Amino acid sequence: MKSTLAPAQPRTSASLFAPIAADLDEVERILRQTLNNARPGVDRLLAHLAHYKGKRLRPALLLLTALACGKVTSAHHLLAAVVEMIHTATLVHDDVLDSASVRRHVSTVNSLWGNQTSILLGDYLFTHAFHLSSTLDDVRACRIIGEATNRLCAGELQQICGRGNIDLSEDEYFAIIDAKTAELTACSSKLGAMYAGMSDEVIDRMTNFGRSLGLAFQIADDVLDLIGEETLAGKSLGTDLEQQKLTLPIIHLLQSTSPEQARRGRSILTAAGNHKREALLPELHAAGSLEYARQRAEGLVSSALADLECLPPSPGRSILEALADRVVHRDH
Amino acid sequence: MKSTLAPAQPRTSASLFAPIAADLDEVERILRQTLNNARPGVDRLLAHLAHYKGKRLRPALLLLTALACGKVTSAHHLLAAVVEMIHTATLVHDDVLDSASVRRHVSTVNSLWGNQTSILLGDYLFTHAFHLSSTLDDVRACRIIGEATNRLCAGELQQICGRGNIDLSEDEYFAIIDAKTAELTACSSKLGAMYAGMSDEVIDRMTNFGRSLGLAFQIADDVLDLIGEETLAGKSLGTDLEQQKLTLPIIHLLQSTSPEQARRGRSILTAAGNHKREALLPELHAAGSLEYARQRAEGLVSSALADLECLPPSPGRSILEALADRVVHRDH
Repeated sequence: MKSTLAPAQPRTSASLFAPIAADLDEVERILRQTLNNARPGVDRLLAHLAHYKGKRLRPALLLLTALACGKVTSAHHLLAAVVEMIHTATLVHDDVLDSASVRRHVSTVNSLWGNQTSILLGDYLFTHAFHLSSTLDDVRACRIIGEATNRLCAGELQQICGRGNIDLSEDEYFAIIDAKTAELTACSSKLGAMYAGMSDEVIDRMTNFGRSLGLAFQIADDVLDLIGEETLAGKSLGTDLEQQKLTLPIIHLLQSTSPEQARRGRSILTAAGNHKREALLPELHAAGSLEYARQRAEGLVSSALADLECLPPSPGRSILEALADRVVHRDH
Repeated sequence: MKSTLAPAQPRTSASLFAPIAADLDEVERILRQTLNNARPGVDRLLAHLAHYKGKRLRPALLLLTALACGKVTSAHHLLAAVVEMIHTATLVHDDVLDSASVRRHVSTVNSLWGNQTSILLGDYLFTHAFHLSSTLDDVRACRIIGEATNRLCAGELQQICGRGNIDLSEDEYFAIIDAKTAELTACSSKLGAMYAGMSDEVIDRMTNFGRSLGLAFQIADDVLDLIGEETLAGKSLGTDLEQQKLTLPIIHLLQSTSPEQARRGRSILTAAGNHKREALLPELHAAGSLEYARQRAEGLVSSALADLECLPPSPGRSILEALADRVVHRDH
C-alpha cells in the first residue's frame, strides 16, 4: 500500500539538507508507516498526500537545530514527522478555505474529492499527529505541540475573522503570522534543541531563531502571492487578495505612503472585479511597499542569525545560516 | 467575556446527573476558563458554542464511571472537559459536512459565519483539547485521547468515502459507528476508571461498557434521524438519507427482508427527489427494520449492563445503569 506523504525526492534544498538526508529519510519512513490506514477509501487519500511533499522546511529545521546542537536522536525523527503532519493538515484545510485547486503542481484533495473529505482528512492528520507525539512517552512534547498547534489555529481564525478589514494594522498582521506560521517553526527549533539536551537559555534562543525564520518566511510567501508566477510556485496565487486578507506590502501601501497612493490602493482593493493583483502591482512598486516587506523579512533573518550565535560554529549551524538566508532569497 | 461552552442548564438528564452536578459545574468552569480567547472575532465564536450545550453525555459518562469506581478527582474534571471539547469540535465540523443550519435549536456556526470559519473553529477546539489534556502531566491521557480521536476521524472519513454505497454491509456500518461514536464514549469510561485507580481488568470492562453504550446511542440516533420530529430533536433530520449514508434500519431493509421489500427500498433510495424519508418509513415499518435496529441497540445495552457488574453495587453504578437504559428509551 502506498500510504505515504513522500515518495519522491524533495523539490528544493536537497543539497543544503545533505547532512540530514538520512534523518529526513527516517522521517519519511515514519510518515509512511504511521499513515498506513487500511480503511476503505482512506488509503487512496493518504496516498495522494505524497504529491504535497514540499520543502520539508519544518522537519528540516527541527533536525538541523538538533544537528547544530550536537545530536540527532530517534525522538527528533518522530517529532519531525509530527510537525510535518500538522503542517500537512493545515495545508489540506487551507486549500478548502482558499478554494485552491492546485498545490505542488497537482490537484488538491478538495478539488478531487470535495470539501467534506478534505475537512475530515485534515482532522485525521491533526489527530494522528497528536497520537504520534504521545508515543514518545514524554508529556513535554505533547504540551509543546498541543500549544503551538492551538495558537496556529487561533491565528488562522483571527485572520479569517479579520477578512475584508481594510484597516488591519501592521501589529495585527504580525500577531496573525506569528501565530499561524511562526509558532510551528518556533516549536520545531525548540523541540530540536530540547531533545538534544540543551540548556533553557539555548532552547529559548533557538525558539526565537525558529520564530524569526517563520515570520520572515511568511512575509516572503505573502510577497510571492503578489508578484510570483503560478507555474513556478506550483500553486494558485493572488489568493490573499481574493480572500480579502491584507498582507504586509498592502498594509504598507495603505498606511505608510502618500495619501494619494493610499487612496488609489484602497480604491483598487474595494473595487469589484478579479484583477486586483495586476492593478496593484505598479502601485506597490511605486510606493516601495514590496521593498519594505523584503526589508522587514531581511531584518528578521538578521535577528535569527544573531540568535544562532548561542551555538558554537559547526557544519549544522552553517546550514541553519544558509537556510535562513534562503528563506528571503527564494524565487518560488 | 462570555467565552463559554455552557451558560445554561442541561436540557435533559439533570435529575439523573444530580450526584455529579458539582463535578459537571467544575467541568463547565474549566471549559469557560480555558476557552477564553481574546483574539478579535474569536471570542464571539466561542461564546456561540454555549448554545450547543446538549446532554453532556461524554463528560457525564466519564464522571459517573469515576463515581461508580469510588472517587472523582480533579484529573477527571479536566479530562471530562477534554472529551466534551473534542465532541464539540466534531459537531462543528459535522454541521459543515451535513450543511446543517440548526443545532440544539439555534443556528449553526456554519450558517451564521460560513464554512471557512467553522472549519477553523473545529480545528481550534481539537487542538485546544489536546493541549488541555497535556496539562495533566501524564502522557497516558494524551495517548488515549489522541488515539481515540484519531479513530473517530478515521471512522468519519470511512463513512464519507462510503457515501452512496447502497451495498454497505452491516459489518461495515458497525465498523464505522464503532470508530466515529463508540470510540469516544469508550475513551470516556476508560479514563474515568483509570484515573480512579482501577485494575486493568476493571478498566477493560468499563471501556467495553462505554463502547457498547456508544454503539447503542448511535443506532438510536440513526433511528431518530428516520422517525424523529425536528422540533423535538432541535436539529435537522433526514440528513443521513440526504448524504446517502446507509444506517442500520436501511441496511436491514435492503439486505435482510424479502426480495420485493428490498427492491422497493432500493428503488426509493436511488430515485431522484428529496422525500425519501417519508417514502421509506412505511417500508421500514412493514419490514420490521426499525424494530430490528431497536433490538440491536437493546442487545448492546444488555451487554453494557453485564460489564457494569465488575463494580460493586453503588449509587454511581445505579446511575450508569439508568443512563444505559435511557440511551435506547429516549424520544428525542
